[in-house]
Amino acid sequence: MIQVKGYAAQAVNEKLAPWNFKRRELGTHDVQIEILYCGVCHSDIHNIKNEWFPGIFPMVPGHEIVGRISAVGERVSKFKIGDLAGVGTYIDACRECEDCKSGHEQFCNQGVQTYNHLDRNGQPTYGGYSNILVINEDFTFHISEKLDLAATAPLLCAGVTTYSPLNRWKVGKGHKLGVVGLGGLGHMAVKFGVALGAEVTVFSTSPDKEEAARKLGAHHFVVSKDEDQMKAVFHSFDFVLDTVSANYDINPLLAVLRTNGVYINVGLPSKPWEISSFSVVVGNKVITGSGHGGLQEVQDMLDFCAEHHIVSDVEVIAIKNINEAFERMEKGDVRYRFVIDMATL
Amino acid sequence: MIQVKGYAAQAVNEKLAPWNFKRRELGTHDVQIEILYCGVCHSDIHNIKNEWFPGIFPMVPGHEIVGRISAVGERVSKFKIGDLAGVGTYIDACRECEDCKSGHEQFCNQGVQTYNHLDRNGQPTYGGYSNILVINEDFTFHISEKLDLAATAPLLCAGVTTYSPLNRWKVGKGHKLGVVGLGGLGHMAVKFGVALGAEVTVFSTSPDKEEAARKLGAHHFVVSKDEDQMKAVFHSFDFVLDTVSANYDINPLLAVLRTNGVYINVGLPSKPWEISSFSVVVGNKVITGSGHGGLQEVQDMLDFCAEHHIVSDVEVIAIKNINEAFERMEKGDVRYRFVIDMATL
Repeated sequence: MIQVKGYAAQAVNEKLAPWNFKRRELGTHDVQIEILYCGVCHSDIHNIKNEWFPGIFPMVPGHEIVGRISAVGERVSKFKIGDLAGVGTYIDACRECEDCKSGHEQFCNQGVQTYNHLDRNGQPTYGGYSNILVINEDFTFHISEKLDLAATAPLLCAGVTTYSPLNRWKVGKGHKLGVVGLGGLGHMAVKFGVALGAEVTVFSTSPDKEEAARKLGAHHFVVSKDEDQMKAVFHSFDFVLDTVSANYDINPLLAVLRTNGVYINVGLPSKPWEISSFSVVVGNKVITGSGHGGLQEVQDMLDFCAEHHIVSDVEVIAIKNINEAFERMEKGDVRYRFVIDMATL
Repeated sequence: MIQVKGYAAQAVNEKLAPWNFKRRELGTHDVQIEILYCGVCHSDIHNIKNEWFPGIFPMVPGHEIVGRISAVGERVSKFKIGDLAGVGTYIDACRECEDCKSGHEQFCNQGVQTYNHLDRNGQPTYGGYSNILVINEDFTFHISEKLDLAATAPLLCAGVTTYSPLNRWKVGKGHKLGVVGLGGLGHMAVKFGVALGAEVTVFSTSPDKEEAARKLGAHHFVVSKDEDQMKAVFHSFDFVLDTVSANYDINPLLAVLRTNGVYINVGLPSKPWEISSFSVVVGNKVITGSGHGGLQEVQDMLDFCAEHHIVSDVEVIAIKNINEAFERMEKGDVRYRFVIDMATL
């Protein structure tokens, strides 16, 4: 077994603190990654607080992982020692089901999440708030040496979560795209939307986010609490990508879509929506969601980012400050993603 | 003015009874249609009962109209006297807005409904439960002489309402299509689905509808109240077309969709749905609706029906029996559409 250092919550809702644990020895197709940076995703907080489902503790969060390959199994062909590597939200899947075969490994019902899950041998998985990861090479991505590495980490979750639906729905030149919320996901959605050639409008409840939105490349800004501003954009958007995780009424957003317009949710609010059938029948409108991306899609997104020089805007922190970072995230006080420098572990 | 005979409700919820009224003289681009048959749509009942919005009375319902051209305005080029002609749910639109210009005249916010609406001169519109209609040629469709005329009438609403989303989402060979409900809309959805090459399953709460479903060409039948039958089709459909107008929980239908699967509502239930964001995010699923069709789409549907010998299954009635027909429709006692023979007026 391989000795690993990390930060864990020992029980639900507890503070993170140093914790040593073990990972498996390398199998023939495994790589060992020396973790250099790990992004801090809002779902790390959801998981530690059991906000979605009961968690497995001790819990080592983290699924926005970048580092360097420090060892390879006998039959590894995709990586060599010294290569940059990235890992996202899942580390295994059955490879045989319809979802796996069609490039939607993220939805495989035998898939294994990077942390807070049991692997296929029934062992708990531990995430990227740690110094070493052992993982099958197929679930590991190539990272360009061209990009700032700390700022690349959030691409593995926030990046692909926003890139995937824009790619699937072929958002691009000639489209009006609304991005709702300007946090870790939202700021990536703006960057991708602009890079894909769409005309991007940020919707936010906070008028004071306009300057930041424009700095990210957004062409327009709408205060979503302002009825006049909402009326002025009635029936005008091809796509709205909603990154907000708070519960709120999405019906006003359906009203800004033009005929055949598409509302995409990636924010995963916890309470159900109340939606009238009339709001989709009139105008043939679409409500959809999107979860992460398949293996090929994650690599495509990373390659797209390298080509277009897209990374996340990050605040790099020492791991000892992770609990304070969680508190600041819950207040929305981060532009736009915390990333842990694992050299501080 | 042109003297017209019809059947009207004089006030909300009243029985239909004979009523004489007037229509405008023919304008240069108008045609006069001698109405031969008019389908009886469930929305005729909704309108008479003010179930969607306050109605305009006296109300002459009917928007599934077929007949023969009996006079043409000076500049009419699309029709000549003696031609078969059809009219659907709307009779005018602005022709200038984004929806009109993109072939979605049914959503024009200056559009004029065939009845229970005000035309662009502020005059009430009266529908097809009458012997004569005057209408602009552009909102009038060609009907093939090959098809049974009475059975063609319901295509103008029930037909296009189900054809349009199947066409827009390119449903066809290799797709598994679920059709929910087996009434006026549902039975058309089955016929179109089969003609387009999809593998069609009817979902119904009534096990005794299986034989009828199979007669229409459905390949499979699922009793939607039976949990085991629903589990057996979990995660297996590309499309579900829901024609049910009653209020019920659609979440079990989202569960039968595979990844990227599409739920399409045309039933317009009156109460809002409660839907969790997880049910669309996991599996990138789509919830959408569809309302009627644009002018070109209606004509395309009629041409498709002529080519594939598709009509509605109808029970032809005398107009004096219309109130009894409404009562039977409310009990679901019709296979599948009443059509009024206007010779009985």
